[in-house]
Amino acid sequence: VPAKWIDDTNGLSRRSFLRMSGLTAMSAGLPVKSSGSAAKAAPTMIGVPFEKMEPALGIIGTGSRGTLLLRILLELNVKVRAVCDVLNEPVEVAQTLVEHAGQAKPELYSGSVNAYEKLIERDDINTILIATPWEWHVPMALKAMRAGKHVLLEVPAATTIEDCWKLVDASEETRRHCVLLENCCYGYNELMLLNMIADDRFGDLLFAECGYLHDLRDLIFSAKTGGTWRRDAMTKRIGNLYPTHGLGPVANYMRINRGDRFDYMVSMSTPAKGLDTYRKQHIAAGDPKWGEHYVTGDMNTSLIKTVNGLTITLQYDLTNPRPYSRINSIAGTKGIFTDFPPRISLEGQRDEDSWMSIDEWKQKYEHSLWKDSHSIAKADSDHGDMDFVMLRRTIQCMRDGLEPDIDVYDAAAWSAPGPLSAASIRNRGNSMDFPDFTRGKWRTRAACNLTRLG
Amino acid sequence: VPAKWIDDTNGLSRRSFLRMSGLTAMSAGLPVKSSGSAAKAAPTMIGVPFEKMEPALGIIGTGSRGTLLLRILLELNVKVRAVCDVLNEPVEVAQTLVEHAGQAKPELYSGSVNAYEKLIERDDINTILIATPWEWHVPMALKAMRAGKHVLLEVPAATTIEDCWKLVDASEETRRHCVLLENCCYGYNELMLLNMIADDRFGDLLFAECGYLHDLRDLIFSAKTGGTWRRDAMTKRIGNLYPTHGLGPVANYMRINRGDRFDYMVSMSTPAKGLDTYRKQHIAAGDPKWGEHYVTGDMNTSLIKTVNGLTITLQYDLTNPRPYSRINSIAGTKGIFTDFPPRISLEGQRDEDSWMSIDEWKQKYEHSLWKDSHSIAKADSDHGDMDFVMLRRTIQCMRDGLEPDIDVYDAAAWSAPGPLSAASIRNRGNSMDFPDFTRGKWRTRAACNLTRLG
Repeated sequence: VPAKWIDDTNGLSRRSFLRMSGLTAMSAGLPVKSSGSAAKAAPTMIGVPFEKMEPALGIIGTGSRGTLLLRILLELNVKVRAVCDVLNEPVEVAQTLVEHAGQAKPELYSGSVNAYEKLIERDDINTILIATPWEWHVPMALKAMRAGKHVLLEVPAATTIEDCWKLVDASEETRRHCVLLENCCYGYNELMLLNMIADDRFGDLLFAECGYLHDLRDLIFSAKTGGTWRRDAMTKRIGNLYPTHGLGPVANYMRINRGDRFDYMVSMSTPAKGLDTYRKQHIAAGDPKWGEHYVTGDMNTSLIKTVNGLTITLQYDLTNPRPYSRINSIAGTKGIFTDFPPRISLEGQRDEDSWMSIDEWKQKYEHSLWKDSHSIAKADSDHGDMDFVMLRRTIQCMRDGLEPDIDVYDAAAWSAPGPLSAASIRNRGNSMDFPDFTRGKWRTRAACNLTRLG
Repeated sequence: VPAKWIDDTNGLSRRSFLRMSGLTAMSAGLPVKSSGSAAKAAPTMIGVPFEKMEPALGIIGTGSRGTLLLRILLELNVKVRAVCDVLNEPVEVAQTLVEHAGQAKPELYSGSVNAYEKLIERDDINTILIATPWEWHVPMALKAMRAGKHVLLEVPAATTIEDCWKLVDASEETRRHCVLLENCCYGYNELMLLNMIADDRFGDLLFAECGYLHDLRDLIFSAKTGGTWRRDAMTKRIGNLYPTHGLGPVANYMRINRGDRFDYMVSMSTPAKGLDTYRKQHIAAGDPKWGEHYVTGDMNTSLIKTVNGLTITLQYDLTNPRPYSRINSIAGTKGIFTDFPPRISLEGQRDEDSWMSIDEWKQKYEHSLWKDSHSIAKADSDHGDMDFVMLRRTIQCMRDGLEPDIDVYDAAAWSAPGPLSAASIRNRGNSMDFPDFTRGKWRTRAACNLTRLG
């Protein structure tokens, strides 16, 4: 470990230094804070609304995810001025989609991994949507903010603690927002739970369980739909590669960065056997995929402790046969909700040992963002509903000049379990501290906008 | 911390010493190994069967649990020669139950916390069943083994690592068995899963999730049914007070102490709010219970890593409103089972994203101990089925001269998460090593007897 990584001036506390000084494997997993102290940081972006604006977008990444988001943005009559992808065919499809929606033909950028840099420079664009492989999220977002654009960023935002800090620093220095496109925060149940929690239905909150449990083996071994970069990451990284789908909604329930904060976490992974097992069954001998060595454990389980003492169990498994689940469980002194399928048990309103349907609560607690379900039903995709609600709300925040629901501090805190899980695994499950990306502002910040919206 | 606790001679490895040397709160939670090295230990009890014997029992503890077990033993025509309880009324009831079953009137021991010592000395008894409050398990079991009796011990066996070692040492020195009465290992689904795992239905095992999630607030605040000693423990101890109900069955699935071993664990608890909340609602002002201060966090979640790399999530919550569950989930490369209610998803036999009933598997995989369900149905209690199967099998092992299914090594390993969870919590979630109670014998031991029985 280079000496400069473990002195006090770049963010590791003295206690952390003492704890880590006896360890052996920290060079690979050590979380570091790259940026300066709070003293030299620019002012916070907490409480800073968008200027009232009509979004004019450039989209970087027109694979399956970027194209799905583009279709919804066109439904929302959002101007798309430029599209970019390293591959020519999908970006031409995107260009055609924009034209067919009645807009001017957007400029097309392609043919090189640096093509996006020209798109970012355009002065007829005020917002950049990034739906590229993980390794490109941070360099693209930094360049976009430094060019004066707001950023809408796919999940996770970053894969190292250093990069999480870079996003925070850049957002503060440029006064541009870096919004995390965590669609699961806009699910029907997730938003309804915010209203139930605000109405004290669960009492004092105690713990949550969440995750991203999704058998994606077909997709991971497909040439399309991101299989190549996903498999590549699974030859290099360990821990939880996808923390935000589960953690984002729970962070909103627990008011993380708004009265509470992630304090520390531990993590363990199983051996990596799922992809090997699949390859034996489905991939022909001689295929280049047989040269790959997968290192990401199949099931990763982490525990997170908040400063207020609450606990979160966070799971990740994309490579074993099982039904889809994000778990999405929240519990307090008065009861518990869990999901997939949704069910609830509340003190005084339950048969002992029975889960109940949530249907009877929908009339009272349905979130305002889901009230007009007619327009939502127009979105045609696997998870188009959440995506539609997310993008409609995000665009509305820009048009109305509101603060974004999920800002750069959330993007950093929700993405941090990626590198922190890897560091814990390399260190025999010992706990890793979360940085306070809000620089102390979490103590006084009000509840998240989605809770206040109701 | 006394210096004698942290030198190499009494079991802490040099690495553990280095890891712990920087910590602050270890005096309360430090796990220690009290006994001598393997070199001076008596021979192992692994592979040692009961001598063929007709059990003749003394029962210590005739509260609700002891009385339930007594009723089943009488159904099984087991001789009960003496009964003991610190309270006179329940032990008289027990005495009458034995007489009504057609046996000679058993001797009654009561009136003092030391009354059990006289019972243990009787030479017409070869087996002592212990169903007393937790703090009495180890002193009673040690005295019983040293008096030449086998022990049937309620859960958990012990609440400190030192006491776990004392049980192992005593069993080896006295050549007496210390059988853990972990009834959940004998549940219908738990035993059927052993057969499915042995037939490779789940592929290579990867992870398990288990726990004891049981809203016992009424019982905990009741004067009867163990409320007093349970509440007392909750004013003194933190972590998981009840690890074995969830962990025992999973240990059998994963062949713990029989080809694999618990390596290390981490743990976190939520704040303790459940008992306070209940007390406000149900306990009159001025009641002495208002002088109690509860410290056990409501929900405890631990992660355990095995030497072979598998992971286990272990939970504990007795003090919040929620449906009963032991979770009882096991997963591998070919599929996953989870419980409460039971459901399964296996590769190639599932609708994508659907759980299936286990009913179609029952004919092929029902465990032999459950084949004669007619006699099992006779047992009349809440969980009489598991208890009946457990005691019938345990008595049969003694009568036939077999090795017990759950021996002192299992009792120690499955109880160790109690003190190890407390130590991890006191140490900011850092990991704690499990001792190897088998002294290396886990590497070569065959699968558990329940698997071999099929």
